[in-house]
Amino acid sequence: MAEPSGAGDSIPLECPGLDTAAGEEFLQEVFQILLEEGVRKSTDVTQKVCDWKEPQELRDLLDLELRSDGEGRERLLQRCRDVLRFSVRTGHPRFFNQLFSGLDHHALAGRFLTETLNTSPYTYEVAPVLVLMEEQVLTKLRELVGWSSGDGIFAPGGSMSNMLAMNVARFQRFPESRNRGNWDLPRLGLFASQESHYSILKGAALLGIGTDNVHLVRTDERGKMIPEELEKEIQRVKAEGSEPLFVCATSGTTVLGAFDPLDAIADVCARHGLWLHVDAAWGGSALLSPRLRHLLAGIHRADSVTWNPHKLLMVGLQCSAFLLRDSSGLLQRCHGVGASYLFQRDKFYDVSLDTGDKSPQCGRRADGLKLWILWKAVGTRGLAQRVERAFGATRYLLEQVKRREGFQLVIEPEFINLCFWFIPPSLRGQENSPEFWDKLGKVAPAIKEKMIRRGSMMVGYQPQGSHVNFFRQIITNPAVTRQDLDFFLDEIQELGWDL
Amino acid sequence: MAEPSGAGDSIPLECPGLDTAAGEEFLQEVFQILLEEGVRKSTDVTQKVCDWKEPQELRDLLDLELRSDGEGRERLLQRCRDVLRFSVRTGHPRFFNQLFSGLDHHALAGRFLTETLNTSPYTYEVAPVLVLMEEQVLTKLRELVGWSSGDGIFAPGGSMSNMLAMNVARFQRFPESRNRGNWDLPRLGLFASQESHYSILKGAALLGIGTDNVHLVRTDERGKMIPEELEKEIQRVKAEGSEPLFVCATSGTTVLGAFDPLDAIADVCARHGLWLHVDAAWGGSALLSPRLRHLLAGIHRADSVTWNPHKLLMVGLQCSAFLLRDSSGLLQRCHGVGASYLFQRDKFYDVSLDTGDKSPQCGRRADGLKLWILWKAVGTRGLAQRVERAFGATRYLLEQVKRREGFQLVIEPEFINLCFWFIPPSLRGQENSPEFWDKLGKVAPAIKEKMIRRGSMMVGYQPQGSHVNFFRQIITNPAVTRQDLDFFLDEIQELGWDL
Ligand SMILES: Cc1ncc(COP(=O)(O)O)c(C=O)c1O
Ligand SMILES: Cc1ncc(COP(=O)(O)O)c(C=O)c1O
Repeated sequence: MAEPSGAGDSIPLECPGLDTAAGEEFLQEVFQILLEEGVRKSTDVTQKVCDWKEPQELRDLLDLELRSDGEGRERLLQRCRDVLRFSVRTGHPRFFNQLFSGLDHHALAGRFLTETLNTSPYTYEVAPVLVLMEEQVLTKLRELVGWSSGDGIFAPGGSMSNMLAMNVARFQRFPESRNRGNWDLPRLGLFASQESHYSILKGAALLGIGTDNVHLVRTDERGKMIPEELEKEIQRVKAEGSEPLFVCATSGTTVLGAFDPLDAIADVCARHGLWLHVDAAWGGSALLSPRLRHLLAGIHRADSVTWNPHKLLMVGLQCSAFLLRDSSGLLQRCHGVGASYLFQRDKFYDVSLDTGDKSPQCGRRADGLKLWILWKAVGTRGLAQRVERAFGATRYLLEQVKRREGFQLVIEPEFINLCFWFIPPSLRGQENSPEFWDKLGKVAPAIKEKMIRRGSMMVGYQPQGSHVNFFRQIITNPAVTRQDLDFFLDEIQELGWDL
Repeated sequence: MAEPSGAGDSIPLECPGLDTAAGEEFLQEVFQILLEEGVRKSTDVTQKVCDWKEPQELRDLLDLELRSDGEGRERLLQRCRDVLRFSVRTGHPRFFNQLFSGLDHHALAGRFLTETLNTSPYTYEVAPVLVLMEEQVLTKLRELVGWSSGDGIFAPGGSMSNMLAMNVARFQRFPESRNRGNWDLPRLGLFASQESHYSILKGAALLGIGTDNVHLVRTDERGKMIPEELEKEIQRVKAEGSEPLFVCATSGTTVLGAFDPLDAIADVCARHGLWLHVDAAWGGSALLSPRLRHLLAGIHRADSVTWNPHKLLMVGLQCSAFLLRDSSGLLQRCHGVGASYLFQRDKFYDVSLDTGDKSPQCGRRADGLKLWILWKAVGTRGLAQRVERAFGATRYLLEQVKRREGFQLVIEPEFINLCFWFIPPSLRGQENSPEFWDKLGKVAPAIKEKMIRRGSMMVGYQPQGSHVNFFRQIITNPAVTRQDLDFFLDEIQELGWDL
């Protein structure tokens, strides 16, 4: 056979280069594995939450190496089972480790749909349904914020949404900075509370504003920004010759679950003409509950809002809405560059539906569909009930923590974050000894290691400010019952007893 | 009944707040719909590619409104069917509209797995399997670039990967800018070709560098950056008092599919001490083919590379690798802020596996798994064959275009982008008339509208530089056969005949 003269010449094009029938069969089988091991077992309270392996052991078990030749069906199916087996079960009723947890079947169906559609909602042309859904979901979220008009876009996570907020704020004040960069601008000042999410720092670094220009405003004993301290910081920064630009208030801080006082902060912003962004990535979902939305009173006064339905609403990673009060097209002017291969102006339909240019991304995932399906399935009322159930479960756990010996609250919880120490018997009564806090700081990590090795549950811990390592319990999953909460405390007690 | 005293008080916690059995049944049914309508029909060449509806008609058909109450199972299943029915079938063998297309069943299985796991590969703790897979896949991609060590992370799209490159380049040269912002820096200069992707502009705006400081270097008649022009631009920018920082070479430009001459560009960068980034979002996959990788000769000299397996490798949106030659921890130092609630240093395992702090994101999707599964399924060889098949199919189409009357190439293709005009009989022989180009520029949009209304196929068009609207044909899907390609040309001819 003659050597082909170049790549591709020898490839027969008569037949498809994919075995569709075999592929569909494979999908069918994977789906049954997923349903059994990934959904049923992963949400079954009698199963382990995780099956801990040391990294090297796991590398070997998984045989990760990628080789020249492909593998047969049985082998691949076994690989899918292994992936599920050795992964952490974030949908398990005893997984409390992150601000996302739980498995909602409707949302998961929406995610499967999204993956099957495999398109980007940047133009109506290639994603008509998804573009309209995004529009609808964003409108609905904005209504809950209290805005009858506005703008918005889904971003790949709350960190990104917060960065978009900073960028839009800069652009609104200094439109020419988009073209000329920061050089001609005064040194800018950004403000957020000491308890704000670290994405504010990351954003300031990425945007060329610099982390030193993020001024962390003091919080009160419950982790809420003190508006008078914000005022002082603004004055101080002005006096130093910088120009205050942007205030990020947090509605539901990551660790303590604190809600900054939005109305008072909005007053300060109004006085100084600053952009008010509310990072409600975590707490935004409280807006759904008529009984909890008071926590965000004043949010309608914000210029922009970050809200992550992938956290409390269990929509699945990722779903982060960046919402804007502006309806003059600021977002498009800020980010749009009008690429002529994608956003042709001579299309035959209304090109205002080609919303992709509002984002700094090009290809984007369609993160609205899964929320839309879930919302259709349970209604606004059902979503509200979930939030309230999570709140109720936290109240129950709070009572138990207060009642049980050896458990000590870090602060009285305002929301769903329950922060506490477990004090082992060996440390009780020594609260005034010099080594007490040092020793206590080692307790949570030790308990955490034990629970992971046992696979019985997972919960986060961290130090914060002057507080040594404490547990942060988060309940977002409606599958969690009172028994799970009792188990949770029993288990901590048992694992920590001998420390 | 007494009014409950606060949210949550009245919620019974004895039983789970989710009906797991009903949920699993729903998933099962949705999966069958997906397989039938979303996979089988969507890849069936006898079906339409899209079912065009005007936006208002589609809004009504979909009944998008989100209400207080949830809906029953049958209604929801019908909604899933509607979503599939009215969406564009990007896996169809006659969808040629984007740089991603086609449906690979293994990769789709990987996506379903990822969605079911619903975790973020920021810590080994919550994503042990996914963290190790990411490590493995990135290592493999780096090897193909020609690096035996290095670093990297998956980003939500090639645009984001390009932005990370700019940020890391800035940080490497001016580490203090991370804290202090751009103000203390000289005005920076970024360089990319006239044909580079628009994300370079978006990135410059976001990073506070400014779009004016992106210098678009002239390209030759095939769309490749001219290294001598780069040299001249650098000199010019220096003479104006700016400091050149970063060169983005493109391996596979978005529209023309041009490959910049990397070796010559690397020489220029070396001479001036500039960061060389290669945007191989589109063309990177050619590295898999021993017969095509010469297109990227010199890529190992880059400092960083963007490579999107979600395009040519059909992994599914999104999968974009940001690869770095540095192995000193630059990425971590550039982006890391060490949030103590997530990246605790006192964990019991090797915390260098908690890679999330290398990214400006917090929660991140696990984009490596789907590529890993596909790679295991077909092997490096199978991936190479796909790239070569796409290349071969383009060669076949090229021949036909050259042979057929009324078709005119824009440029001789180097890769998989085939750019051409269709000249309707009414315009033939008038190439020298003053209105020829004006009239020709209206042909592609008119044909495009007709094909969408008919639902027979989809292909992109755009103007570019001095060229009026032309078609850009992209074949990434191995399910495309010779018949599909003949159909493609016949259809354009038929739809454009009377224009
Ligand atoms: C208050 C707050 N804001 C922003 C974020 C970042 O969200 P993401 O992980 O989606 O980037 C988080 C994440 O935990 C958060 O708690
Ligand atoms: C050359 C090039 N770079 C970058 C991108 C951006 O990739 P993404 O859409 O994943 O952001 C594209 C997208 O088409 C591209 O063609």
